[in-house]
Amino acid sequence: MTIQVFGHKSPDTDSTGSPIAWAWYLSEIKGTPAKPVLLGEPNTEAAFVLKHWDLPKPEIIAGIEAGAPVVIVDTNNPAELPEGINKADILAIIDHHKLVGGLETNGPIEITVRPLACTATILHDLMGDDLARAPRGIKGAMLSCILSDTLEFRSPTTTAHDRAVAEKLGADLGVNLNELATEMFEAKSDVSAFSDAALLRMDSKEYTVAGKELRISVLETTAPKLILDRKASLMASMIDVAKEDGADQVLLFVIDILNEEATLLVPNALVKDMAEKSFGATVTGDTVVLPGIMSRKKQIIPSLSL
Amino acid sequence: MTIQVFGHKSPDTDSTGSPIAWAWYLSEIKGTPAKPVLLGEPNTEAAFVLKHWDLPKPEIIAGIEAGAPVVIVDTNNPAELPEGINKADILAIIDHHKLVGGLETNGPIEITVRPLACTATILHDLMGDDLARAPRGIKGAMLSCILSDTLEFRSPTTTAHDRAVAEKLGADLGVNLNELATEMFEAKSDVSAFSDAALLRMDSKEYTVAGKELRISVLETTAPKLILDRKASLMASMIDVAKEDGADQVLLFVIDILNEEATLLVPNALVKDMAEKSFGATVTGDTVVLPGIMSRKKQIIPSLSL
Repeated sequence: MTIQVFGHKSPDTDSTGSPIAWAWYLSEIKGTPAKPVLLGEPNTEAAFVLKHWDLPKPEIIAGIEAGAPVVIVDTNNPAELPEGINKADILAIIDHHKLVGGLETNGPIEITVRPLACTATILHDLMGDDLARAPRGIKGAMLSCILSDTLEFRSPTTTAHDRAVAEKLGADLGVNLNELATEMFEAKSDVSAFSDAALLRMDSKEYTVAGKELRISVLETTAPKLILDRKASLMASMIDVAKEDGADQVLLFVIDILNEEATLLVPNALVKDMAEKSFGATVTGDTVVLPGIMSRKKQIIPSLSL
Repeated sequence: MTIQVFGHKSPDTDSTGSPIAWAWYLSEIKGTPAKPVLLGEPNTEAAFVLKHWDLPKPEIIAGIEAGAPVVIVDTNNPAELPEGINKADILAIIDHHKLVGGLETNGPIEITVRPLACTATILHDLMGDDLARAPRGIKGAMLSCILSDTLEFRSPTTTAHDRAVAEKLGADLGVNLNELATEMFEAKSDVSAFSDAALLRMDSKEYTVAGKELRISVLETTAPKLILDRKASLMASMIDVAKEDGADQVLLFVIDILNEEATLLVPNALVKDMAEKSFGATVTGDTVVLPGIMSRKKQIIPSLSL
């Protein structure tokens, strides 16, 4: 039975490219038939990456059949996976996020979690010398994953190892990293086709802070103006999205990749208090700029308080 | 601050030897000062292994201070670790058991779980070429861990890789594996110094089966008669141990390593029913022999039903 390899439900570049790379490795090197699948429509950056490296878009699946062999990459959080995930035959988990618990397996399986910026960096290490046999598209997808997750090495999640692996892949492929990253970020910044609600849910994770259920959304962009011009309707949409998703509040951080700062939308007193307590910011209007803030994992989540 | 490396609360050979080996690697190869510690008195086999390889017995610690940097090997189960474990700074987990959840970390850490028989086999793979620099005692401890966890390759948990690593270490050290294993198993079989309650808790894990809280104990021995001669007082002690530990029933499987079979003590109708339903056994007296049963993880737990 073909192994299905997938990432989380909101496929960004890492959750699109890493399943493709790992399915290649399992099929072509390990001799265990595997295919990448997606749990949702890839975002605009991931769609660009597929096209750029001439990779077919993986099938989008609606759910997982009981007993189906699967490998999970780029998440270990059941909330970011299909409902029936614990009835699947989970063979391995490869991830770079905090362990949240909740995935169940019958016996010990292969679990590799590393505190690196990107799943593809871990895949590189696990593949070892076999990566040399990968076609150009596989190496290119892995390179794009690292550029995406590190925001071209600007994100504080970036480790020296992520950077070294990306530079090695870039040299191998003869790719100018800055040119590729710029094209990727431009693709990600083209949000014109998305509704406000879609933007609020595009790159969003749920966390509880001081008893409040928060949906913490980030939008990484080289064109923050495109999003901030829509701030009034985004703030209006937050109320509906929070209600529909059972959250107390949606927080939207617009990450300006090039200027290395975040702009937080401040729709009400709760978010104003959070911004002031969490980031020592002084809030006077309906947005606040947070210099240097680029990473939800490393900076936003650890700082949030109320 | 020195990193403390430890296994679970009932230190067998793997939970004693693997912390020693990994602390060596962290200190001597990685340059991050680390020391092995124990969460309890090592069992008789582990004590023999320390003496045999001329290794100092690690300090037994009563608890973990908040914020202390630690590496956990051979378990990922908070129930098998000190109460304050989630307040420690958990740097890494290296294990070969099913993920049970419950350990909490602030961010992503290094987690390596592999479906192998022994933690030391995983350590071997992680150390790579650096293992060549290990002193004799470190290699010897790792070899002993594998012989112990695989019951000298008899346990169905044994993989070809565990065996290959043990054979490589044995050749490197010029050790006759069968002689070493025999001495180790004889040390483990010398249970004369232990009370009945201590024997019932020596190698024991808690599981819930059909709503019953079970303490599932195994004793691996080359001299089952020494234990079975005490069956009356062991069965009497089960009632107290179950009450003290909040379990509904203690199950004791005496694993005859050399004859590759288990003898289950049958103190009452509940255990008789379980033996018949789980293993298709016919129970006529107060013990039942289960041919081929050697592994709690691979055979006993997956079979138990009521």
